[in-house]
Amino acid sequence: MPISNTDRILLSHGGGGRRTEELIKNVFAKYLANPILDGMDDAAFLGESELRTFFSGGAGRVNGLVFTTDSFVVKPLFFPGGDIGRLAVSGTVNDIAVMGARPIALSAAFILEEGLKISELESVLESMSATLREADVQVVTADTKVVERGRGEGVYISMSGIGMVEVSPPPSLRRIEPGDVLIINGPIGLHGLAVMLERQGMEFEGKIESDVAPLWGLVSSVLGPEIKFMRDPTRGGLAMTLNEIADATGLGIVIDENLIPITPEVETVSELLGIEPIEIANEGKVLMVVARERADEVLEKMKMHRHGREAAVIGEVTDSTGGRVVMRTKLGTTKIVSKPVGETLPRIC
Amino acid sequence: MPISNTDRILLSHGGGGRRTEELIKNVFAKYLANPILDGMDDAAFLGESELRTFFSGGAGRVNGLVFTTDSFVVKPLFFPGGDIGRLAVSGTVNDIAVMGARPIALSAAFILEEGLKISELESVLESMSATLREADVQVVTADTKVVERGRGEGVYISMSGIGMVEVSPPPSLRRIEPGDVLIINGPIGLHGLAVMLERQGMEFEGKIESDVAPLWGLVSSVLGPEIKFMRDPTRGGLAMTLNEIADATGLGIVIDENLIPITPEVETVSELLGIEPIEIANEGKVLMVVARERADEVLEKMKMHRHGREAAVIGEVTDSTGGRVVMRTKLGTTKIVSKPVGETLPRIC
Repeated sequence: MPISNTDRILLSHGGGGRRTEELIKNVFAKYLANPILDGMDDAAFLGESELRTFFSGGAGRVNGLVFTTDSFVVKPLFFPGGDIGRLAVSGTVNDIAVMGARPIALSAAFILEEGLKISELESVLESMSATLREADVQVVTADTKVVERGRGEGVYISMSGIGMVEVSPPPSLRRIEPGDVLIINGPIGLHGLAVMLERQGMEFEGKIESDVAPLWGLVSSVLGPEIKFMRDPTRGGLAMTLNEIADATGLGIVIDENLIPITPEVETVSELLGIEPIEIANEGKVLMVVARERADEVLEKMKMHRHGREAAVIGEVTDSTGGRVVMRTKLGTTKIVSKPVGETLPRIC
Repeated sequence: MPISNTDRILLSHGGGGRRTEELIKNVFAKYLANPILDGMDDAAFLGESELRTFFSGGAGRVNGLVFTTDSFVVKPLFFPGGDIGRLAVSGTVNDIAVMGARPIALSAAFILEEGLKISELESVLESMSATLREADVQVVTADTKVVERGRGEGVYISMSGIGMVEVSPPPSLRRIEPGDVLIINGPIGLHGLAVMLERQGMEFEGKIESDVAPLWGLVSSVLGPEIKFMRDPTRGGLAMTLNEIADATGLGIVIDENLIPITPEVETVSELLGIEPIEIANEGKVLMVVARERADEVLEKMKMHRHGREAAVIGEVTDSTGGRVVMRTKLGTTKIVSKPVGETLPRIC
């Protein structure tokens, strides 16, 4: 690996895969490390110890706050099925929802590029507004900066959010055990491919639209102690999320390719492009780790929600693979699923 | 005004002055309006009604949370007296502090430009870390994105923060009355001029260093019900902050140029450049509106803090100027202080 790969920032450092992980562990953690940030969750959990003063006086059954942040630099700003405004709200709501928390307030910080058409900004804001209504949450604080032409690209949005944990015990990597069942709420790979095809201007017979959607409604419809852990498989796709679970728990995972929901269009196009669907970013998917004895019940409830109609059990947690993520393929073979190095395409979210 | 001034984003839309205000009122508010955001404070106040579920069980004397966000796009990344890392932490802590709240958790979202030297990123993080320790707060959740060379400029940082209100009643524009006294904690114009001189590569005999600093320590040392309102005069300077107070309250303000703390260097350079010091951004200043009968006491306490040694009373709130901000100049004349149109220089913070 040439020196330039290590002493300067590469696009793949932002891909959400192994290289992002390296940057976080080797650079960011050196300066910002603390027990909460080190948890490497999509959102920070602030419990009784962090909120000590807040709890003085004796609040009864408060389960804590969660706090999350993300920047959105998707390119192009508008893509089939969504745009950067819908993406920002959905991504933030979902990071809160997977902590078992109801989003209560969002913030939005805009970095605008000089020369951006105000009409384009309005389209983004209109979509953001519609998604906020859909998710039943508001932007309560905001900021705008402008950078010179060529120092941004239209609009970058950084969004943070606060949520209130609505379940006890809250979902946590520590609660995962062998035998737990993995459920996903629908077909994978849609967001990443939709953005990719739009960006490359590739024509394709058939429809691939981003799945971008706020998922608190779906999540709250199944929330209970049987939900051991949740995560939205965005950058790095399902492959990254599964490996993060394996890494954090020391447990293995077995998934079955035949069980993973996928549309025929995504299957065709990703084969054509030589991309693994499980490495493609999703923006309307949640992977749930569920106690085995309640998995059927959770699955049925999910199917009743419009964002869960195609929910499916895709595998399980196990202690028999030596901590690896293993996939039974459609050909009947098994293969190890490893972490993607970088996102297949930069600026997918 | 040519059409291009209205249908596209201009650098001055990010200056924090009148044009920023127009963009917020005419564009952002159309889509994102809600009572909390409309408050136009530097941070959102989440009180009992917003946090209803959280308070169930009967937490005693909880005064609410505040939530704030800002993007930092300062250029250059390093300037005399500070850098983008110290600026992000200080700016966020100060937006929380002026709400009468203790910062309890920050988030950081980084947009890195491909090709950025990792050593440069490390310098920013190191400074951020030192400022976090100084402010006794942590970054609990973070995100990193990477954009192509020429689509960013080294590092942009978006930072959000949560604070807990530690005083009752909390500072609020609604509490301001005629006769209240205006106090500032030290000399103005340092941050904006330091960045400007550094960017232009201007040589100057004498030292102008940014005042960038986290101010919760200073604020908490004087916090009490006699503090009617606080704001940190950043983009648009003291002129913008004073006009915002006048606009929101309908009251007038009289300040005395002779009383405003200013260093001889800032006075010389701003005269040379034809800039009004009261329009220059500060990043370590807080303007306090204080009940007259307690003003001396607050001033004495401030002077005991290292960020308040040069604190001074600079004027008062009045109902005799027809809602305008009026300055008695050094020449003995009076003049109206209006809102700056845009920041004298873009990307000051």
